[in-house]
Amino acid sequence: MEGDLKVGIVGFGYWGPKLVRNFAEMSGVILEWVVDLDEAKLGKVHRDYPGVKVTTSVGEMLASDVDAVVIATPIRTHYKLARQSLLVGKHVMVEKPLTDRSEHAEELVSIADRLGLVLMVGHTFVYNGAIQALREIIASGELGDIYYVDSARLNLGLFQPDINVLWDLAPHDVSILRYILGMEPLSVSAHGSAHVRPGVHDVVYAEFAFPHNILAHVHLSWLDPCKVRRVTVVGSRKMVVCNDVADVEKIRIYDKGVERTYVTDKFSDFHLEYRYGGVHIPYVPFREPLAVQCEHFVSSIRHGTTPTTDGREGLQVVRILEQADRSLQEGGVRKPLMGLLDGSRLVGAGKDGMAVSGVAHGH
Amino acid sequence: MEGDLKVGIVGFGYWGPKLVRNFAEMSGVILEWVVDLDEAKLGKVHRDYPGVKVTTSVGEMLASDVDAVVIATPIRTHYKLARQSLLVGKHVMVEKPLTDRSEHAEELVSIADRLGLVLMVGHTFVYNGAIQALREIIASGELGDIYYVDSARLNLGLFQPDINVLWDLAPHDVSILRYILGMEPLSVSAHGSAHVRPGVHDVVYAEFAFPHNILAHVHLSWLDPCKVRRVTVVGSRKMVVCNDVADVEKIRIYDKGVERTYVTDKFSDFHLEYRYGGVHIPYVPFREPLAVQCEHFVSSIRHGTTPTTDGREGLQVVRILEQADRSLQEGGVRKPLMGLLDGSRLVGAGKDGMAVSGVAHGH
Amino acid sequence: MEGDLKVGIVGFGYWGPKLVRNFAEMSGVILEWVVDLDEAKLGKVHRDYPGVKVTTSVGEMLASDVDAVVIATPIRTHYKLARQSLLVGKHVMVEKPLTDRSEHAEELVSIADRLGLVLMVGHTFVYNGAIQALREIIASGELGDIYYVDSARLNLGLFQPDINVLWDLAPHDVSILRYILGMEPLSVSAHGSAHVRPGVHDVVYAEFAFPHNILAHVHLSWLDPCKVRRVTVVGSRKMVVCNDVADVEKIRIYDKGVERTYVTDKFSDFHLEYRYGGVHIPYVPFREPLAVQCEHFVSSIRHGTTPTTDGREGLQVVRILEQADRSLQEGGVRKPLMGLLDGSRLVGAGKDGMAVSGVAHGH
Amino acid sequence: MEGDLKVGIVGFGYWGPKLVRNFAEMSGVILEWVVDLDEAKLGKVHRDYPGVKVTTSVGEMLASDVDAVVIATPIRTHYKLARQSLLVGKHVMVEKPLTDRSEHAEELVSIADRLGLVLMVGHTFVYNGAIQALREIIASGELGDIYYVDSARLNLGLFQPDINVLWDLAPHDVSILRYILGMEPLSVSAHGSAHVRPGVHDVVYAEFAFPHNILAHVHLSWLDPCKVRRVTVVGSRKMVVCNDVADVEKIRIYDKGVERTYVTDKFSDFHLEYRYGGVHIPYVPFREPLAVQCEHFVSSIRHGTTPTTDGREGLQVVRILEQADRSLQEGGVRKPLMGLLDGSRLVGAGKDGMAVSGVAHGH
Repeated sequence: MEGDLKVGIVGFGYWGPKLVRNFAEMSGVILEWVVDLDEAKLGKVHRDYPGVKVTTSVGEMLASDVDAVVIATPIRTHYKLARQSLLVGKHVMVEKPLTDRSEHAEELVSIADRLGLVLMVGHTFVYNGAIQALREIIASGELGDIYYVDSARLNLGLFQPDINVLWDLAPHDVSILRYILGMEPLSVSAHGSAHVRPGVHDVVYAEFAFPHNILAHVHLSWLDPCKVRRVTVVGSRKMVVCNDVADVEKIRIYDKGVERTYVTDKFSDFHLEYRYGGVHIPYVPFREPLAVQCEHFVSSIRHGTTPTTDGREGLQVVRILEQADRSLQEGGVRKPLMGLLDGSRLVGAGKDGMAVSGVAHGH
Repeated sequence: MEGDLKVGIVGFGYWGPKLVRNFAEMSGVILEWVVDLDEAKLGKVHRDYPGVKVTTSVGEMLASDVDAVVIATPIRTHYKLARQSLLVGKHVMVEKPLTDRSEHAEELVSIADRLGLVLMVGHTFVYNGAIQALREIIASGELGDIYYVDSARLNLGLFQPDINVLWDLAPHDVSILRYILGMEPLSVSAHGSAHVRPGVHDVVYAEFAFPHNILAHVHLSWLDPCKVRRVTVVGSRKMVVCNDVADVEKIRIYDKGVERTYVTDKFSDFHLEYRYGGVHIPYVPFREPLAVQCEHFVSSIRHGTTPTTDGREGLQVVRILEQADRSLQEGGVRKPLMGLLDGSRLVGAGKDGMAVSGVAHGH
Repeated sequence: MEGDLKVGIVGFGYWGPKLVRNFAEMSGVILEWVVDLDEAKLGKVHRDYPGVKVTTSVGEMLASDVDAVVIATPIRTHYKLARQSLLVGKHVMVEKPLTDRSEHAEELVSIADRLGLVLMVGHTFVYNGAIQALREIIASGELGDIYYVDSARLNLGLFQPDINVLWDLAPHDVSILRYILGMEPLSVSAHGSAHVRPGVHDVVYAEFAFPHNILAHVHLSWLDPCKVRRVTVVGSRKMVVCNDVADVEKIRIYDKGVERTYVTDKFSDFHLEYRYGGVHIPYVPFREPLAVQCEHFVSSIRHGTTPTTDGREGLQVVRILEQADRSLQEGGVRKPLMGLLDGSRLVGAGKDGMAVSGVAHGH
Repeated sequence: MEGDLKVGIVGFGYWGPKLVRNFAEMSGVILEWVVDLDEAKLGKVHRDYPGVKVTTSVGEMLASDVDAVVIATPIRTHYKLARQSLLVGKHVMVEKPLTDRSEHAEELVSIADRLGLVLMVGHTFVYNGAIQALREIIASGELGDIYYVDSARLNLGLFQPDINVLWDLAPHDVSILRYILGMEPLSVSAHGSAHVRPGVHDVVYAEFAFPHNILAHVHLSWLDPCKVRRVTVVGSRKMVVCNDVADVEKIRIYDKGVERTYVTDKFSDFHLEYRYGGVHIPYVPFREPLAVQCEHFVSSIRHGTTPTTDGREGLQVVRILEQADRSLQEGGVRKPLMGLLDGSRLVGAGKDGMAVSGVAHGH
């Protein structure tokens, strides 16, 4: 494709303004339209970006010559808006999660495939330099066998009207776990509670079983006094903490571990030694992940390539969330994920996936 | 009782030296004996405390005129040593947990009752100034309704040869939760994994349901790069974090919360507002909790009073740990606790328990 | 003044893009021109803000109907550009420091006065919510007598080609000190060293004597591994730390102090007691200080009012910096400031100034 | 020397109890006597250490067969007590600073020399694992040329009745600087203020010039809300921060620096680039520095070797403090140190001193 890429953005709520800023400043891209139902918000867009057309009608924007549509609306509207856009031949990027039902996500994937259009989902952390560094550290084998992952995503607020905290925050954790481990989870169990609105979970603890006996535990809360965005990966040789809330020093690698010394004659002589080494904080150049994500979308369209977080990736995440939510509604009953997931679409399958498998085979 | 209290300590491993130091420095107390099977350790005791008698024979110490015995040996030996000591008329303090089987704990409680002896268990955190402050903050009603408690107790190491991480660390969390909430848990579910030694869980996530819809989640690990000892209590009006690893500023009270605004005509107008206020860090005078605990033991003997963490308290904690361990072994099946527990022995039942109940009734 | 205010910005280096973004998004303002000598930078402006005219000629912009000019160029050019702009009737906001010579600053003040134009200097921290809160805390008398202020402004980098670290960073500290204390310094002494470029100080320690025996110490460095922006104010009753690098919790008020107990008969009985109380972290709503500053400039023009950091304020700061730099060049010789400064233009003179004086009179 | 070393300790105030504990627990040492004027304190010693003799008479202790005397009394008494002890043939360790007048320190050094006795001063930080690691990092040349050192030693309290904050805290900084740089300072300038007691400085900023253009700045305060014990060393290639208040991770090595790129034709093309690399936190095994120090004293007596912080080292520090105090009293006038100091007694002179010189010669 030649010339400037014309983009229309639907939704000017929480993510919309950030997307507008990114596309407005990107070279080779013309931000043509912003759509929202709220006239006051459109007025603000018009004032700040006089060159951008605004409308309350999605149809008006879709009827124009925009090449790509970016959807940043409430989750329940993702399917309808994405479907509509794809069917008139637009490339589409949707905020996470792709949809709130896997059947809908399947249909979107199928339409995009059939029409040869790019369908991408905004799993932002996959474009976050710290998470990318974490993935590389794991893939390098430096940590030894991976024992477990503990992820916490907590803060006060940002309740969404139509979803629980699992659907709001877990898309991040699920996409991060699949991306850094290079594997699909085998099963999930989720517990939680609803304190502020009856029936809407605002605190959730979910546990994902991955191959090679790797356990991933995820703590989500809309009701914590401190903002936490932390992923801890514990390996047999080293341990890593990725703290995304930190301005700098997001990744800390601990050269610590347990050394096993087996003594065979008496069980009571079983002996463990600990290795306490230093901590290394690598320098991770950091760009705004949303900017990287938006550029990746544009680049995928331009070069006809598949985005890292394409529709199939989005579909897998929705399937996992659906099962996790079923477990949550049933009080923590463990739900299988294996048959559901299509391993061929694993992010990082192939070379990287192998690398991680290789590490874990050491068990 | 008049005159100096004579004390014998059994076990000079991890806690033993700390107990020896505390009793050696306490006025009105004579540390008479230290017992350990390891001659080298006894040599060190003799060198540092020339006035203290040492022996490898528990019988020799029990045959002496010591008034009280302090037991700081591996858990599987607690029952036998405590029973033996009580039966020859000694007051007894046992390191936590009281025993590894509730039947054994019941028997100890019964013997102590019958013989009119003090039986106390070393739930140290109940004697920790920060945890005491946390209990007072909750009891004051300042936090509003209690929504949930999240507790994390993590570090690298201190594997014990004969128990898993639940029996090693959860006695702290269980005694803290009962103490600060002033209630018994209704049920427990525990998940976990064993990475270093087959069959011995080194990472556990346990969830306790308390009355009034209060959820308590506990994360335990022997395999984390960072030492964490943190209890977060989230209420409807305020939130508190108690960080015991901090040297100072262990308690932080966040004046934050969710304000519910109901709009009746349309569900979609349901509206939440957040209140973001300041943080208050009260000054909490801090003494070594073990010193407070040891003095409480001596004072209970002297005045014939029941220790805050007496045998019945220790028994309740063992019953809870047993059920939690069963859940862990069965992959997280929720286990009831209600019938098992004897509410009359709740720490802080009565005035304080009422206060907390009162708060929670606001639900 | 009615209608939209038309603004031209000169300089698109470090501050320029931030200023462009702020004025572009402000309602009631039209960003008309951006001037820079670098065509590539202008290309970027044109791409992101197609409605803004760009030029390499300051004259072309000054010949237009812009109402106000914002100058964000190297310091040595401030005087010439500001003078030129004022003389053709434009209101002017200049990045700090106003000029590099006090004679030049005096002339600018005089021209602006004569022509009835707004002349403002960008002492950003005066528009920073945390510094404003700090000023209020001091003015309230809550801290007791002010003993001393310690300010540190450190990081690695941002060397400017034509100035030393004093001229680069101390405008912040000097404007903060005058603002929060509501007084002019009486004298200054500065030491430092030049490690990277001969003759250009990159590390400076300056000490300002204020009335009432208040000492202010300022540490500046372009060569520190950690980014530090911290002001500590020690009073006889309480102490405050303002940490501008923190994302949240920028202000901490320590309820600590020394209690003096005089015993008259023997000097050796002189006795001090310490009061160790809690810490309070007030909630300080925070807006981007540059946005507040830009709005204040526009509002001053619209309503014909004097900006808080007007030309006279800028002049005082330049006079202080000049004396500090002389002290630095002479190896720390203390330089008087009293006669030089025009107390009538003290920020916050009057009610606030009195309040602080009142506090300090308690000595 | 054979058999157990008999030790007497004078003074049971702040350091006394820590010294008593260390010598009581050291093998090969018998703590024979504790001397204090306060009977109540002696009662406590007697209770905790029944085997130790107590007295209010220094003479009684000196008349006994103790081999070594440890002096932990107010500074003004150091000279008299140390002299008295040396003259009756006892080895002596004195708390820092050695004396409050250099003539007195000279006399003590001379007596110890003449009588062949060990005279040691308790510059504890020289026995601190983190400071030892810092010295090794500097000596390795890893930091490049040393540009400057910034040291801060702040807290609320511990006013001593007879000295100012310089004499109280700066012995630490002066001994640390000499130890880690392996050089004597060339001159000193000190400023400060007295807020709580007239004439007794409680806040001091001192600046030491070292060879090779190395500047060391020291900030001391008895009036700061936060406890700070931090040494920052900035080199041309790397930078190190040693934070002694941290429980772990006391040393952080920043792989950051300024890269100079000279362009010769135009001054304006002078160009600096920054290198932003990772942070490394080495694992530093940590033992209580006072224990290391006490063992070093005993070992020096046993083997007839010179302690690292012997009387001459103590004398140099007193000379430096005297000049710093003169500068402080004269409002910051720079005082020379060169002629005063006896370079041959520099800690680490010889191999290590050379190593550091070598690094610095790179200037």
